[in-house]
Amino acid sequence: MLKNIVTPCFSNIDGFQHVNHLTVPMWFELGREHLYRIFTPNYDLEHLRLILANIHVDYVSQMYLGSDVEIRTYTQNVNNSSFQAYQEAWQNDVLCAKGTVVLVHFDFKANKSMRIPDDLRAKLEEHLFRAP
Amino acid sequence: MLKNIVTPCFSNIDGFQHVNHLTVPMWFELGREHLYRIFTPNYDLEHLRLILANIHVDYVSQMYLGSDVEIRTYTQNVNNSSFQAYQEAWQNDVLCAKGTVVLVHFDFKANKSMRIPDDLRAKLEEHLFRAP
Amino acid sequence: MLKNIVTPCFSNIDGFQHVNHLTVPMWFELGREHLYRIFTPNYDLEHLRLILANIHVDYVSQMYLGSDVEIRTYTQNVNNSSFQAYQEAWQNDVLCAKGTVVLVHFDFKANKSMRIPDDLRAKLEEHLFRAP
Amino acid sequence: MLKNIVTPCFSNIDGFQHVNHLTVPMWFELGREHLYRIFTPNYDLEHLRLILANIHVDYVSQMYLGSDVEIRTYTQNVNNSSFQAYQEAWQNDVLCAKGTVVLVHFDFKANKSMRIPDDLRAKLEEHLFRAP
Repeated sequence: MLKNIVTPCFSNIDGFQHVNHLTVPMWFELGREHLYRIFTPNYDLEHLRLILANIHVDYVSQMYLGSDVEIRTYTQNVNNSSFQAYQEAWQNDVLCAKGTVVLVHFDFKANKSMRIPDDLRAKLEEHLFRAP
Repeated sequence: MLKNIVTPCFSNIDGFQHVNHLTVPMWFELGREHLYRIFTPNYDLEHLRLILANIHVDYVSQMYLGSDVEIRTYTQNVNNSSFQAYQEAWQNDVLCAKGTVVLVHFDFKANKSMRIPDDLRAKLEEHLFRAP
Repeated sequence: MLKNIVTPCFSNIDGFQHVNHLTVPMWFELGREHLYRIFTPNYDLEHLRLILANIHVDYVSQMYLGSDVEIRTYTQNVNNSSFQAYQEAWQNDVLCAKGTVVLVHFDFKANKSMRIPDDLRAKLEEHLFRAP
Repeated sequence: MLKNIVTPCFSNIDGFQHVNHLTVPMWFELGREHLYRIFTPNYDLEHLRLILANIHVDYVSQMYLGSDVEIRTYTQNVNNSSFQAYQEAWQNDVLCAKGTVVLVHFDFKANKSMRIPDDLRAKLEEHLFRAP
């Protein structure tokens, strides 16, 4: 499991005094850096070849100011030219949000998706989600 | 159809020189104000009783700096105690993103969902999405 | 005076139930589009030659959900290669925030500031702030 | 010196391929948690009594994707009922941004500033900035 620790800040809290829903996809993006670096080890924009086709987030339980949040990042459905990141946000041992994004390996010049090389596919599959 | 016009600003543009994916759910939230005001006409936090259960966004085409974006907001699946907002973002007559959120009518004191009153349900249904 | 109308959205409201302080520089950036277009009429990133040297914001009065905010944008201190934007945020006829940013006309290739052409300087000076 | 490590994420990068200027005050807010906890040890919104009067940020050098950023937080000008946080952002041993915020110890019920107790003032002064 790939892991990041994030700290809610005052501006992440909304009028209901919970972490705002827009904060979660921002944290999930941070967690996907591990996956982006499989394709682009030094994470430079010039060589990054992944585009985001869709996002989905389920808000399971509220998150609050004052305790760190653990972002867990996995892969699933690693296909020919795309894969899913599956991610979870945990605060105080409670699963508070979970979501997926579909990432497409993309050739910006040809403007079409391209095959994920086998060695990178193998690395993605090291992080496959397995339901507990 | 409920409509909002938003203007991409420099900070909404990311390293790929497109509107960043996190900007879209922010714009969609702005577009849902029409629906929130059906429940809470003066949109005050004290009386707002809707919580967001999940979001989904499909990124269909890139958006850029320099042209306004039209956010279109509809309802669908208006159920007993929840409903969906279905939303689209159009730039220069191109559908660039579309998405749904599930909103639950919620009693914060009892900590459970509550029935949407019939008159409000009827108002929500005035904005039902009909595929063109 | 250059003017933009913005609508606070739910996510702009923080745990004190006011517009969060980070929202104001975001709105001010939106308001500066008028000034950026003096340099780059179609506001394309390729030809934009302004960099931001500093920002300052004074928070004068709270802003709330439910009423639009008017962003007023002016120039001041138009110098050889830089100028200030002076901006205000008004809600319900109350001045709620004001601030400045210093913008430098910059040659990215030579990596140094460059003179603002006289015709553009004249256009900037059409929007000079005059204290009421 | 109080220290936080933050990681630029893809969405923090703007069309000039640098960390966007709005990201810096967000990171600085994260860094001020240490100071907020001097007043409110468990950082709960109900007891937080600090309001932000102004912010200032100088953008000294560009920050990029791919390397962590160190946020350094100090105090200065600790007055009767207010104080300044002075903060710096360093990436790869380069000072990239620095700024101040004025924080006012505030009585929300009486709607006026209130004296900072001596024991808290002493704690704030443990973090005074001393120019190197």
